[in-house]
Amino acid sequence: MKACGIIVEYNPFHNGHLYHAQKARELSGAEVVVACMSGNFLQRGEPAITDKWLRSRAALANGVDLVIELPLCWSLQAADYFAKGGIKILQAIGCQALCFGTDHQDAFDYQAFGRFAHEKRLAIDIAYRALHDEKLSYPQKMNQVFTRLYPEMQLSGAMPNHILGLAYAKENANYPHPMTLYPLPRAGAGYHDHKLSDQPIASATGIREAIAKHQSVSNFVPDQTLQSLQEQQVTWEKLWQFLRYRLLSTTAAELRQIYQMSDGLEQRMLGAVTQATSFSDFLQAVKSKRYTWTRLQRLCCYVLLNIQDQEMRQAWQEEQLRILGFNATGQAFLRQQKKQLTAEVVSRIGKPTTIQQELMVRGDQIYRLGDERIPEQTIGRIPIRI
Amino acid sequence: MKACGIIVEYNPFHNGHLYHAQKARELSGAEVVVACMSGNFLQRGEPAITDKWLRSRAALANGVDLVIELPLCWSLQAADYFAKGGIKILQAIGCQALCFGTDHQDAFDYQAFGRFAHEKRLAIDIAYRALHDEKLSYPQKMNQVFTRLYPEMQLSGAMPNHILGLAYAKENANYPHPMTLYPLPRAGAGYHDHKLSDQPIASATGIREAIAKHQSVSNFVPDQTLQSLQEQQVTWEKLWQFLRYRLLSTTAAELRQIYQMSDGLEQRMLGAVTQATSFSDFLQAVKSKRYTWTRLQRLCCYVLLNIQDQEMRQAWQEEQLRILGFNATGQAFLRQQKKQLTAEVVSRIGKPTTIQQELMVRGDQIYRLGDERIPEQTIGRIPIRI
Repeated sequence: MKACGIIVEYNPFHNGHLYHAQKARELSGAEVVVACMSGNFLQRGEPAITDKWLRSRAALANGVDLVIELPLCWSLQAADYFAKGGIKILQAIGCQALCFGTDHQDAFDYQAFGRFAHEKRLAIDIAYRALHDEKLSYPQKMNQVFTRLYPEMQLSGAMPNHILGLAYAKENANYPHPMTLYPLPRAGAGYHDHKLSDQPIASATGIREAIAKHQSVSNFVPDQTLQSLQEQQVTWEKLWQFLRYRLLSTTAAELRQIYQMSDGLEQRMLGAVTQATSFSDFLQAVKSKRYTWTRLQRLCCYVLLNIQDQEMRQAWQEEQLRILGFNATGQAFLRQQKKQLTAEVVSRIGKPTTIQQELMVRGDQIYRLGDERIPEQTIGRIPIRI
Repeated sequence: MKACGIIVEYNPFHNGHLYHAQKARELSGAEVVVACMSGNFLQRGEPAITDKWLRSRAALANGVDLVIELPLCWSLQAADYFAKGGIKILQAIGCQALCFGTDHQDAFDYQAFGRFAHEKRLAIDIAYRALHDEKLSYPQKMNQVFTRLYPEMQLSGAMPNHILGLAYAKENANYPHPMTLYPLPRAGAGYHDHKLSDQPIASATGIREAIAKHQSVSNFVPDQTLQSLQEQQVTWEKLWQFLRYRLLSTTAAELRQIYQMSDGLEQRMLGAVTQATSFSDFLQAVKSKRYTWTRLQRLCCYVLLNIQDQEMRQAWQEEQLRILGFNATGQAFLRQQKKQLTAEVVSRIGKPTTIQQELMVRGDQIYRLGDERIPEQTIGRIPIRI
């Protein structure tokens, strides 16, 4: 069975995602669509609006055959590490194709770019290190490096999906059997479009904003998502009180142990927390030119989840496939692949036995504090079958 | 000016406390009554029902001349350390007398007991250490030791004020100029009386229970307390969600750094937290024969406030007098004493400069999470003058 992978967050699952799953099958000619989906904390440093099980359920009802969790140590990361984790999982399960959305205007050749990045990785690394004195963020530095070495790639912060696509292409090219890449030009609204239109496809950002304003989103999402949103809703603002408490009860020395806490950010955070009345208020006070908003949001997640530098590094070493759900096709594919997998397939966690699972339990328990209606997420949970 | 000290918590200030302050003045013949009062976290391992400023205001309006804070490192302790801190502060400010309530039935001679304990401290220590293999709590061991060495003291857990009185007497006898002790037999309800009667004096426990049930307590407390209870109310249950979050986000290794975390209690806590639906539910699950309820409640406070073993030990070394309020008499006394004090008098904290102050800021900020109406407690606050 040929499988096409997709790397997703589904926050929440909407009609654009349905289109993506359909197109993945169509373009790649695969029999199976495998989604590697962020768990309960997402790339932009936010809790998911509904939990990973409800988002998996919606995906399985709308064109996806198998959902595997992208663990916290990869999902709560900037594009490069997010891509590293996603590609690793899709490679491990044995996908031959990868389909991803892009907001690049032209027919950009990601496969060729991936090969270039792989072949020139030493030159890229040297150019990047040469910028170590510059007060630039990681994406800004990479922008400079690649603009010089590969000008046609048009790296720009205004195209987050293109940036992810480039990261997928780079990472994928490092494997002995790279997946065939199927970039999918965006249908309907762009990532940064906040306004909903009369089209059935809207951006997830626009949909979340409509939900926050209690507007109907029934034109843009399938029934399963509408139902999920009735069952639970988590936002950063609901978790803010716990981040605030954590900062009020922690010393600067302890904060410096947190992953990616650097350059006096712990002092900025400790200074801002006593006055802030909301999460956005707090982040506004911490924000400086040097760091992107999402970088700081991710850092807030690391603090909230008390993720220490060493834990993160250990988690990266582990390889496992946490199965969130499947249909008959997905199950058949999983059964077929199991014989040749090197990564452990995890269908049920009784007691955490790895760092990744410990982080999962911790993250999921804290996620549940965002809405008392959310059931146990990890221990004893088995894959959804539809 | 002669001063009589009292060591108090005022949780909340009630008519029995008014009687205590009056009697302290009368029995000792002092011109000034100095209250050393626990801040926002109390001996039994609980947050105070209203903040230290409101409780000081009520005390100053009802017979107390000067209120000095008993810092967290002493207030959140079993009888012996609680007494150590209280006596230290009253000695430092120059009190010549100490008046305390007792629930001992007879006219027990505390002064004589103090002298005995001071003179026989080596024998007591040896007897205590001989019990190190016994699975008994500290109070239980001390009970055994003293029952043998000083049978007339009648140590019993059913007499918490007598136990405190013994601790005061022991500690006081260690100073070159011990204060004259004035034990005050309890008027009205006993400590363990939960039922309110038609007498104007009820136990603080009974009063707190009535408040929790929304019953009137106007017969038992002065107007200032009634008003305070309108302004704010903190309970463990309101802080429970933060303790829960702290436990869910902390590893066993980190928990073992907490002051007094021992004998696998961290595992009991981590095991209990995922199922517990309330603080009392949680504590019930952690409880074992070996530990008293209050010992565990205090441990929960240490976890909530993230108080590490080393911090506690450092805080004990510091000597300072945090002034919470005074009337004209208290102010005159303070002015007179200031010339000869060795401890620093702290009337305003701009930025914490000692471990005690750091713990105070941390404790007070977390205390405020128990009721959003509570104003800033530490930074910039100056003593109440009435």
